[in-house]
Amino acid sequence: MISVLLVGKGNVATHLRNTFLSADNIVFTQINSRDLTNIPKADITIIAVTDDAIAEVSAKIKNPLIVHTSGACSINELKNTTKKGVFYMLQTFSLEKKVDFNEVPFCLEAENKKDEEQLVELANLIGKKIYTINSEQRKALHVAAVFVNNFTNYLYKIGNDICKEHQVPFDILLPLIKETASKIEVLSPEKSQTGPAIRNDKKTIKNHLDLLNKEQQKIYKMITKSIQNGN
Amino acid sequence: MISVLLVGKGNVATHLRNTFLSADNIVFTQINSRDLTNIPKADITIIAVTDDAIAEVSAKIKNPLIVHTSGACSINELKNTTKKGVFYMLQTFSLEKKVDFNEVPFCLEAENKKDEEQLVELANLIGKKIYTINSEQRKALHVAAVFVNNFTNYLYKIGNDICKEHQVPFDILLPLIKETASKIEVLSPEKSQTGPAIRNDKKTIKNHLDLLNKEQQKIYKMITKSIQNGN
Repeated sequence: MISVLLVGKGNVATHLRNTFLSADNIVFTQINSRDLTNIPKADITIIAVTDDAIAEVSAKIKNPLIVHTSGACSINELKNTTKKGVFYMLQTFSLEKKVDFNEVPFCLEAENKKDEEQLVELANLIGKKIYTINSEQRKALHVAAVFVNNFTNYLYKIGNDICKEHQVPFDILLPLIKETASKIEVLSPEKSQTGPAIRNDKKTIKNHLDLLNKEQQKIYKMITKSIQNGN
Repeated sequence: MISVLLVGKGNVATHLRNTFLSADNIVFTQINSRDLTNIPKADITIIAVTDDAIAEVSAKIKNPLIVHTSGACSINELKNTTKKGVFYMLQTFSLEKKVDFNEVPFCLEAENKKDEEQLVELANLIGKKIYTINSEQRKALHVAAVFVNNFTNYLYKIGNDICKEHQVPFDILLPLIKETASKIEVLSPEKSQTGPAIRNDKKTIKNHLDLLNKEQQKIYKMITKSIQNGN
């Protein structure tokens, strides 16, 4: 039995609450980060608040093991005087969409083996993909995630804009988008690279540029050049 | 019963052959585009060769309906004197990976209703997602596909490079990559946009840039700026 206190009511906190409530062997309490007058005791206290609020909130809690859920922050962002850790879930959470926690990678960090084991035990109660990752590695993962999630989604947006402008249903592209994401499970991204840039197909590249607006052209040219330089 | 002649032995041709051979109601023949001395008759002749070879190969064939499979080329790239069409499959094909043709969008174009119906009939024998798309729309789709496939894959490659450099397994990112691709089935890419760029989180953006090499920084800065401008 592990007792968990969840501090925060945002997006990540909401998904975490739902999964904790449906898990066995967890005594669960949740409080709002703006009301820290009466803080319940717990084995593990999870602060799921915005990055900027981690220091302030953690400084006010005296529970034995306090972890944050941020991919961008070091373990030292926590200002509690007790033990610290990180409970980072590398996934994109929207309130509109249910998350399958069996598919969520848990990236855990603690100050000692005992605390690490306790975090692993908790993660195992709600998920399957458990990694121990230090603050330096997590920083790298977080940047990589920006490329494969935020920036990729932005390329989807450009694709959507182009379709809208030329009256083609964006849905036609969905199977390609899914296949592109699946392919790298069996083939490295380097080996999966296809298209006019890597073939240096100048005629097609010119035709494409003719169809794009200025902003889209800038992005098209830069990524094409980068692919060709093999960076 | 439709008779099909497939001209070409490349990547797309190989996947097409495999699916034609396993389909009912198709009389199938395949020839090499470099040996056009003896060309079998067929209802539909599919030229699956490189874009540059379409004109030359099509000029040498006299079958009634000749189509190419290129997303980048107009129907007029065909130089046969009989009827013309396009049989474009918007999917990424690798020899290493089996393709589920039920998930492949067929983008069909013909010069008249009768030919279009015949192409639709053929596509229905091997697939499910059938669209009629004219040359202008296909051009737009092809550019959009470069963004959501080629360029997205390149962002995966950058993610992989960052992981390698910091000794983190790239596998940790695979669930996020899949979720990013699935999310836009229920939420538009515009509404799915998250991350430090859209939040204008300057501190995190600076931390990220510190971790990247020059080339990665250029791409990071340009896409971040573009997201912030809402283009």
